Amino acid sequence: MATHRLINTTWHNVLGTIAPALTIASGDVVITETLDARGFDKNGARPAYGPNPMNGPVFVTGAEPGDALRVDILRMDPIRPSGWTISSLAANVVDPEAARQLPARDRADWLIDLESQTVRLQEPPPGLENFVLPLEPMIGCFGVAPAIGQAFSTATSAENGGNMDYRGFRPGATVWFPVAVEGALFFAGDCHATQGDGEIVGTGIETCFELQLRLSVEKNRRLTWPRGENETHIFSVGNARPLDQALQHATTDMLNWLTSGYGLSVAAASHLMGQVVRYHVGNVFDPAYTMVCLIEKRWLPKPSFAG
Amino acid sequence: MATHRLINTTWHNVLGTIAPALTIASGDVVITETLDARGFDKNGARPAYGPNPMNGPVFVTGAEPGDALRVDILRMDPIRPSGWTISSLAANVVDPEAARQLPARDRADWLIDLESQTVRLQEPPPGLENFVLPLEPMIGCFGVAPAIGQAFSTATSAENGGNMDYRGFRPGATVWFPVAVEGALFFAGDCHATQGDGEIVGTGIETCFELQLRLSVEKNRRLTWPRGENETHIFSVGNARPLDQALQHATTDMLNWLTSGYGLSVAAASHLMGQVVRYHVGNVFDPAYTMVCLIEKRWLPKPSFAG
Amino acid sequence: MATHRLINTTWHNVLGTIAPALTIASGDVVITETLDARGFDKNGARPAYGPNPMNGPVFVTGAEPGDALRVDILRMDPIRPSGWTISSLAANVVDPEAARQLPARDRADWLIDLESQTVRLQEPPPGLENFVLPLEPMIGCFGVAPAIGQAFSTATSAENGGNMDYRGFRPGATVWFPVAVEGALFFAGDCHATQGDGEIVGTGIETCFELQLRLSVEKNRRLTWPRGENETHIFSVGNARPLDQALQHATTDMLNWLTSGYGLSVAAASHLMGQVVRYHVGNVFDPAYTMVCLIEKRWLPKPSFAG
Amino acid sequence: MATHRLINTTWHNVLGTIAPALTIASGDVVITETLDARGFDKNGARPAYGPNPMNGPVFVTGAEPGDALRVDILRMDPIRPSGWTISSLAANVVDPEAARQLPARDRADWLIDLESQTVRLQEPPPGLENFVLPLEPMIGCFGVAPAIGQAFSTATSAENGGNMDYRGFRPGATVWFPVAVEGALFFAGDCHATQGDGEIVGTGIETCFELQLRLSVEKNRRLTWPRGENETHIFSVGNARPLDQALQHATTDMLNWLTSGYGLSVAAASHLMGQVVRYHVGNVFDPAYTMVCLIEKRWLPKPSFAG
Repeated sequence: MATHRLINTTWHNVLGTIAPALTIASGDVVITETLDARGFDKNGARPAYGPNPMNGPVFVTGAEPGDALRVDILRMDPIRPSGWTISSLAANVVDPEAARQLPARDRADWLIDLESQTVRLQEPPPGLENFVLPLEPMIGCFGVAPAIGQAFSTATSAENGGNMDYRGFRPGATVWFPVAVEGALFFAGDCHATQGDGEIVGTGIETCFELQLRLSVEKNRRLTWPRGENETHIFSVGNARPLDQALQHATTDMLNWLTSGYGLSVAAASHLMGQVVRYHVGNVFDPAYTMVCLIEKRWLPKPSFAG
Repeated sequence: MATHRLINTTWHNVLGTIAPALTIASGDVVITETLDARGFDKNGARPAYGPNPMNGPVFVTGAEPGDALRVDILRMDPIRPSGWTISSLAANVVDPEAARQLPARDRADWLIDLESQTVRLQEPPPGLENFVLPLEPMIGCFGVAPAIGQAFSTATSAENGGNMDYRGFRPGATVWFPVAVEGALFFAGDCHATQGDGEIVGTGIETCFELQLRLSVEKNRRLTWPRGENETHIFSVGNARPLDQALQHATTDMLNWLTSGYGLSVAAASHLMGQVVRYHVGNVFDPAYTMVCLIEKRWLPKPSFAG
Repeated sequence: MATHRLINTTWHNVLGTIAPALTIASGDVVITETLDARGFDKNGARPAYGPNPMNGPVFVTGAEPGDALRVDILRMDPIRPSGWTISSLAANVVDPEAARQLPARDRADWLIDLESQTVRLQEPPPGLENFVLPLEPMIGCFGVAPAIGQAFSTATSAENGGNMDYRGFRPGATVWFPVAVEGALFFAGDCHATQGDGEIVGTGIETCFELQLRLSVEKNRRLTWPRGENETHIFSVGNARPLDQALQHATTDMLNWLTSGYGLSVAAASHLMGQVVRYHVGNVFDPAYTMVCLIEKRWLPKPSFAG
Repeated sequence: MATHRLINTTWHNVLGTIAPALTIASGDVVITETLDARGFDKNGARPAYGPNPMNGPVFVTGAEPGDALRVDILRMDPIRPSGWTISSLAANVVDPEAARQLPARDRADWLIDLESQTVRLQEPPPGLENFVLPLEPMIGCFGVAPAIGQAFSTATSAENGGNMDYRGFRPGATVWFPVAVEGALFFAGDCHATQGDGEIVGTGIETCFELQLRLSVEKNRRLTWPRGENETHIFSVGNARPLDQALQHATTDMLNWLTSGYGLSVAAASHLMGQVVRYHVGNVFDPAYTMVCLIEKRWLPKPSFAG
């Protein structure tokens, strides 16, 4: 299991079938430094432009359509002492008439203290003088190339992942993507120092990270949507608008997981989900919204098929 | 501060302007036994019918349109050793084509062990033999009479509350409803032994409780949507379809709370919400869905106006 | 078949179970003068207030839950030479970011020329100097009392009708409403001199009319949603948000009509609807939107059950 | 103005930046034979596969990002005496619980009579024995390559056009697409013998056509969404889910057209649209739905900028 350093010289604003920047074996580890959402690097240079320029793609040998690409998020180290956000709620997350009253969408700067692992506004407005947040790194946009030659902007998301902006995509989490092209073609970028649910200002605290990920092929998993796991939960991810449809996708996928993967009948899975399911809201700013359906592991029967 | 026992002889399937079953002073405590969602009582008799027959209404002296009715959920004791659920996911929470494969929506019975404070299926299907849930009581449907003579089925929800099915409406929580008629006219019922997010089988574990609530008038609060508070968070509740609109209502209400109640500018509130907001999903089964927008109290500035 | 004149002294802002203002026999004709949406009458007096004050209710003898109330719109005569609209698109019908640029929602006055049967702005802005519209009267809000004691604001719509703002509700059209209470309790008001699809400024040209309607009971029709008919088409009406759900309601109802009423199999009805269905957009401004599903009569097989 | 025959040897399931099959000058005419939605040609051979294999792309010399590609639909001649549809309403256009009752989604064959210009089911079910439809040819899927290297499946639609399935895309209509890449890269296919609104069985009557189109570059039009024109109306097209958002896009685009193209103020455009706008429903089956916003030409002021 080798460790590779992925160094891009060009970056990508789509997840699609693009010539790989790196080829690795299943199970190898990739280390890479990401740009922020507008293409600035850790030194303040701007080698790329938004939306969300991606590192990659990484070709994982042996990955074929129908397989899953397993991504273990091993480590996320911030590598720039500054981040930025947008200073106003997005118009689409408030009532339409209330959108008339929102201020301009300016940029605001944040200071990232690598020692204390905290983040705070550079010029806090009144009332937020003591607003100091713990660093909670997460990946905003990652995924694999979609099927049949499609290529999706990194400003949105779909079955192949993309800009899901879910704060559960953090160190310690594992994510599986449905492989649709040979080699999977994995992309990642747009990392956040922290972020609330929904990314309702249109950004997390946008900055640069060194990512360490393990990429592994799991054969013939036949996934439809991204799935994940952390210390306590398994989860299915649905990406669509309206949020109702994202919820339908995530719920259907969890139902399929519990029946195919854990051997439950639909009725048994319904009982389980009905009383213990949790939903988390990912991005509600982009063209596709993200809803995550979670089940705590303690409620799961012994799996008939791992993951 | 007197304590009253509310004993209904008729029950109500709407929240509306109905002759009060009890009149109390602001700050008084009400104790009442609720029926289950189909109208069965703790003894298995059926004095009423669904949807969600309500106890009440309670007229709170001094409550006028523009005020808030504060409801402190002091205690919820289960009073029946059995509950029931529906045995299949609702058709509207899965992908439309997947709805074709769902089993019939039968009723399933659960045993409530009052001693161990746990709940389990009476006849667990394979894989759920060890599925024993802690009792986590919550109020499925409660609220006040809406404005201008409207009356809403207890199968849905709106600005006045109603069938929100949010598991955060539990002992220890406080909820404020916008008063729209003299006396507020408070209703409650449809309590659950536990429930997952979304009430995605169309029920929690439906049973009977003895509720103990304190009802207080807070003058001239000018609320639009229900608000709440628990040990750690404040929250705003939006009820609408699609879920996107429920989220818009809840987000707008929290924005208004942070600006009017805590003195933040819209930009400051945007910074706060953008990085620390949490969303919880209430009912996604009924005509109106419920989304809850929460802020952890440790992030709040000193309020300029309590609650 | 008698003809009655309905003269209200109070008006209603809900459709609900309210003491009747008039009792008639099935097949009788009712003539009544409506107020405008804010409660002004033909003389400029204001005996009532918005939203959409209703004439009625009319109790139709013999109407029982499960029946249909058939409403033939016989005549609509404008009785005031002036109307009004709102001067800006509603915020919810444009893209959220575009809502920031909309002008204030002021009132604009229109002149109704009863002789030429035309309507024009009193103070036309540049470019609209020659904007003279033919009078195309329609009923914005009408329907019957809903079930189980519910009462819905005249600012919205549901299974019982209400504020659907569909320009197909015009003289020559017939509409059936599902009767939910004894006597049906029919309400009408909020008539427009003309209106575009969607009522996207939040109003048609709001004015006063003399309405002439025939109200008839059709026993045991078991309707779920309002249905209608005109010279060329039959149609089903769905009211909900989002528009997708209104479309689902209307489409499902038309499917049921073609199978139950015209004896088609679901597959045959699918073929028919798939290739000849038309959709019209009613109100997209209110809490519930309205979608109308139409089939041209020439495509219909001989009905097994009329209407 | 030359006339070219476009003959594909490979077909495309995405609209994206693909090597052109033909290069033409602005104003030239293209004649081409399309495959049906599953890739069958006029002889019943299957040189390609679904979804909706596209002819093209056509590179139009001089087209640059920011320009519009004007497409005049000059002629559509059916070239196969048979078509097919799906035999059941799609699950997503009916109420979720009703989806459980829908029959299987089989294929049904139709006969296209080129002489009488009519279409009928090969094996009509009872009640549809006399169901003979006039041929009303339309283009289901066409458009240009999207920006920044994106490539979208021909099963959906977006700003660049795609699978909009609007019956207004018929001979006599003109459509403008926003050019996002050099040469525009125009694609077309998936033509229908006729189709109801919404494509609610998931197909029109799918067959092969000879298309004759004129493609012209209009410089610097700065379109966001497709626009069109026919003998009587101008129209803007929005593609998104839910239908509400498609309507917002189309309405916003028409507002921009009336203000930028016809010199109206936002208030004047609001007056015009509010009272005379019409909406047509395109595809409500695909991931993105299509809503069309139309204004009858007789209401338009003299344009300050054509088209």
